[in-house]
This record gives sequence, C-alpha cells and structure tokens, in this order.
Amino acid sequence: MTIHYELADVAQIDAIRLEQSVEMPFDTLPPHILEHIVGKVVAQDGAKVSIHYPNGNVGGEITQFLNVLFGNISLLDGIRITGVDWDELPSDLFGGPTFGISGMRERLGASTRPISCTALKPVGSTPAEFAAMAYEFALGGIDMIKDDHGLADQPYAPFLDRMKACADAVNEANAKTGGRSVYVPHITGPGEVTERRFEAAVAAGAGAVLLCPHLAAPDVMHRLARRSDAIPIMAHPAFSGGLVGPTHGFTRAFLYGALWRALGADFVIYPNTGGRFTYPLADCLAINDTARGAMNGFAGAWPTPGGGMQRATLHKWIETYGKDTCFLIGGSLYQHPDGLRAAAAEIRDLMESAS
Amino acid sequence: MTIHYELADVAQIDAIRLEQSVEMPFDTLPPHILEHIVGKVVAQDGAKVSIHYPNGNVGGEITQFLNVLFGNISLLDGIRITGVDWDELPSDLFGGPTFGISGMRERLGASTRPISCTALKPVGSTPAEFAAMAYEFALGGIDMIKDDHGLADQPYAPFLDRMKACADAVNEANAKTGGRSVYVPHITGPGEVTERRFEAAVAAGAGAVLLCPHLAAPDVMHRLARRSDAIPIMAHPAFSGGLVGPTHGFTRAFLYGALWRALGADFVIYPNTGGRFTYPLADCLAINDTARGAMNGFAGAWPTPGGGMQRATLHKWIETYGKDTCFLIGGSLYQHPDGLRAAAAEIRDLMESAS
Repeated sequence: MTIHYELADVAQIDAIRLEQSVEMPFDTLPPHILEHIVGKVVAQDGAKVSIHYPNGNVGGEITQFLNVLFGNISLLDGIRITGVDWDELPSDLFGGPTFGISGMRERLGASTRPISCTALKPVGSTPAEFAAMAYEFALGGIDMIKDDHGLADQPYAPFLDRMKACADAVNEANAKTGGRSVYVPHITGPGEVTERRFEAAVAAGAGAVLLCPHLAAPDVMHRLARRSDAIPIMAHPAFSGGLVGPTHGFTRAFLYGALWRALGADFVIYPNTGGRFTYPLADCLAINDTARGAMNGFAGAWPTPGGGMQRATLHKWIETYGKDTCFLIGGSLYQHPDGLRAAAAEIRDLMESAS
Repeated sequence: MTIHYELADVAQIDAIRLEQSVEMPFDTLPPHILEHIVGKVVAQDGAKVSIHYPNGNVGGEITQFLNVLFGNISLLDGIRITGVDWDELPSDLFGGPTFGISGMRERLGASTRPISCTALKPVGSTPAEFAAMAYEFALGGIDMIKDDHGLADQPYAPFLDRMKACADAVNEANAKTGGRSVYVPHITGPGEVTERRFEAAVAAGAGAVLLCPHLAAPDVMHRLARRSDAIPIMAHPAFSGGLVGPTHGFTRAFLYGALWRALGADFVIYPNTGGRFTYPLADCLAINDTARGAMNGFAGAWPTPGGGMQRATLHKWIETYGKDTCFLIGGSLYQHPDGLRAAAAEIRDLMESAS
C-alpha cells in the first residue's frame, strides 16, 4: 500500500521507511528484506512524500494496517498523513459504508434534501425522560435522533432500558405521523459488548447505531458494517482528537473523511467550525469533500458537522455545506422557548425548504 | 472520580465540566442535573485544576471511563491530564498488574537485578528464522524475548506457526541451560482474535504476551489481566503518540506509568531518551516513578525503556534508572560482531553484575 505524508523535515524519510516496517538499522538487514520488505519512496515533491509498503506487511487485519499507518511514528513529531491509496489494498480489507448517502436517502424518503440529527441528553436523565424527548423530536420530524455519546450503561439509564424505550417512542411517533425518523442508540462498550448492543438495537427496531471507533477499536466499526444484519453507523470523534494534531498525525479530512469512511461509517460526525470547537472552515470543507468524493468505489458517507450548531444560523450552514450533509444540532434545540417538538419542526422546515 | 488537569487557559474550566458530562449549555440544565451530574472543580492552583465527576457518569465500563477522561475534550487544545484519583473509582473497574515487579522477579528467579528484553525481527523472516533467533537469545540469557510489535499474522510468518516455533525454541533453550527466559508473542488483532491468540500463547507455553492497547482497545488489556489463566502482559506504545502531545492530551507519566498500569500492564514499554525518539530524560524518570510508586494498592509495573538502546551505553542506563527496570535492546544486539548468543550473554552479564 502507498501512504502519503507531509513532513516537517524530509530527513525523517528513512526513519519512517524503517520504523514502519522492519524497525532495524539498515546495516543489519539481509538484502532480500531490504529489497522486498522495507518501505520505498515512490514519489516526492518537497515535503510531500509517498512511501509504498508491501501488502504482505499488513496481512489481512485492520489492527496491523493501523500499525503500518501510524504505529511507531505516532511517537515522533512533524509527520502528517494525508492519504492512502485504497485501491492498492486487498479488496476485503475495507468495505466502505454499507448504506452511505444514497442508501440513507432511500431509508428516510429524503431524495434530495439535507438531513437533520439531534442528540438525547443530558446524562443523568431516566429512560422515560429520554423516551419522551425522542418522541417529541420524532413528532417534529428530526431525521436522526441519536443518544448523546456520553450515554453508555450508567445506572441512571441502563443501555437496554433506555434503548428499548427510545426505539419504541420513535417508532410510535412515526406510526402517528407517517414519518421515518430513526433512533440511533450509542452502543460503544468494552470488547464484545458493542456487538451485543448492536444486536439488541437491531432487535428493538432502532434504525441506526452510534459508535465511537476510538473508544472501542476502529476494526469494530468495520466488523459491524460488514454484518449481514447491518444497519447504518454514525461514527463519533470522542477520544480521536490526539490523532489530528496541528503538525502531527492525520489530516482531519483523512481521519474523518477517508479512514472512517473506509471502515464503514455511514455518517462521520466532526466538530463544525465556529462552534464549541475550533476547526477552520477549510478543514470542514475538506472533510465534506473527502467523505463524499470518489474513493475506491466506496459509497459516500454523510458529513455530519456538530458541536455547537445553532438554530439561528443553520440556514447559513446549509448554503455553505450543501444538501448531502447531515446537520447535527443538539443544545440549541433544548433552548427553544416552545419546546422540543416545535424546535424539531423548525429544523424540519429548514431541511424541506432546502430540497 | 477526580481528574487532574493542567490548562493552557483556565477559561476552559467550564467547557471541560460541561463537555465531559452533560454536553449542554448551563441554561438548559434542570437543577438536579447541575447539582449531581455536571463536573465540579474541587481544587485549583493556577493552571492546575482538579474536577470531580460522579462515578455514576462512568458506570462500570472502561470505554466510558476513557470517554469521561478524554472523549470530547480530545478535540480541544491546551488540556493536559496529569492524574486520576484511582482510589475513588469502583474497586472492580481497574485491577492493576497481575504479576508486576515482584511477581515477575519470582518467575524469572531474578531477586534483585535489572532484567533484559529484546525483540525478534525483522518482519519478512520465516517462523524458523524467528525461532532460531529466539533460541540464540535464550541460550545467551535474555530474560524477555518478545516479537517485534510489527509481527502480526502476515503471510511471511503466520501467528500460530511463528508463536509455536518460538515458544518451543525458548523452552528448549531453557531446558538446556536451566534458565528461565520468557518468550513474549505479539497477540494484537481485531476483535476477539486478540483473546484467541492469548489462549493459544498460554497453551503453547509462552510465558508472557505483547499487546498494543491503542491498536486493540485499552479495555482488552484489562480483560486479559483479569483472566484466571493470566500471564504477564507487556504493553507497547504503537499508535499512542497522539495521546501524549506536547501541550494537549496525557502526560507521558500518566499514560504509560499510571493508566496502563491501572489497566493491567506488567511491563510498560516507552521510548527512551537519546534513542530513535525524542523523550526528555525527565519524562522517562517520571514514567519510571509512576509505574513503580504507590498507587491504589496496585502491583508495580516494570518500566521498559527501548527504541534505540545501545549495548555500549547500557551500563549507564542501569545506573540512571536502577534495578527495577526492564531494558529493551533490539537492533544493537543484531549488530554484534559475534552473533546473537554472544550479544545476549554480554547483556546478561551486565544485568547480573548490577544485582
């Protein structure tokens, strides 16, 4: 596979070639290892460098792919990864989104409009309280009603109780309105707990799941997306920030737009510019383009900006980001003077009027 | 639980309190949530701030612990986590090392001396080649003979073939010398593959395992350490570098010395100063102190500096770091003019003479 880097110092090239393959000095390497195993520079334009590693070094596992991508060099500095040539990798290593932009449009009956997402919060509420919120949001017409990513299996609202209550509430509201709102429970847990929660969500009639791939492990997302009973996956960036440092790590477009999409995220949640976080607009636009653009035949993923989106300026973001976007608006709906249903209906109107 | 931070800007305190609990604006919060769920500042000394979160926000899962620790704030900047009050957490959430410093001394019959570790490399070699190296290292008396962390399940040397060949080789050498060298296969894989490899390693008579907790998920380490058939765990820092950035993330002492130890690492591998990586000596000493010092009754973990350790200067590191240290020396042994066994015997002599 070929990995594309931007380096603070091109003197690091040989260190990267060795560190990400054999981890030994050149003078200890037999000729066949030097020739067939060590990474090779295949392109260079100033600080932009592309290094090719044999697919055999990766084998067939995503954990080892991530190791070759950013294992030991994560401990260095000044190395940014901007891309990977996905088409060089074995076709069964990554699969991309199962539903993606077009599959989700069909499920929602939203053929051209942008779509909306909100979050059930705060942690500390009871299952009945969350279900009541979910019901109101669904009556108002929010498309994706997700758990806050901080809802796990706390005693205040254990996973199964909360998840079943909210799934029922959204399905009941849909039956009443004829709508197709989707409840998105947060399923991240230790080890196989994540998959058991996925199965429980499918059984309860939840229409999608929320996963934090960097709290679980990234390969978990791939495995969920490839299941025969797959439902759409929203990926949340909790615990991922260290991977997208200003001078070291992955570009935000690569992590959220490309790697998560390759791993099977149908929705990629990222911190919108101008909200509670500090991403520049250019980074947000680059994530959007990467998530939607041509990439190894993978379905497009929904860019899902959030983190401080406001009701009052949502129309501006629709203009800026376009229709193939899922707008995540949380706290601002809870501030609406007329309650959650009215807030949701306002958002729905905005989405419809942009179609 | 209480988390200790060093902040670039104390104006971030309220953002952290909200972001890591309810993720909503203050004006949307019912009084009981504000009182019982939102994080509270319990100590402040300039930029050093301690915030307490109810244990209920965490529940009983390590994934959610990590979420409260560094979920959304990972996406901000200028926030360093320096510590956690482990004794406030439920006693079954973390268990610490199963063997630790004293348990490993018993296993190795090394009552006071420092211990040694090397790595089998390079990737691209065959199982028979790795086994031959392991045999030589064991005959020479290296204590811990680990796989390179870049050895996964590649076609050059599939996991089971390599692991069994190396375990047999080390056990055969031990039978010949009366020594107690330990083979440490790398078991990181996707999902439950890691646990299946752990079981295979135990069955084959490997005496410890190597795990990359940030390629798998950190909770995997905890689960392995708490198994009834547990064997010692060496933790490797691959893919972790983004978590210990210069101004944001965890201090190195907290991640490698404290969090990994809490999660059950018997050995914490970190990049030594003056090697291929650029950790300052003060950071290495702080990792050592944290891994060994008093901490919630947990067994001490072996600080395991590596990443460019040299034969010629190893005596200096023994003086600097002391006897409760595992010295990881890889490439330099392969450069020895008289071969691996002679190199290993030199290292063993150094360890014995320091006891």
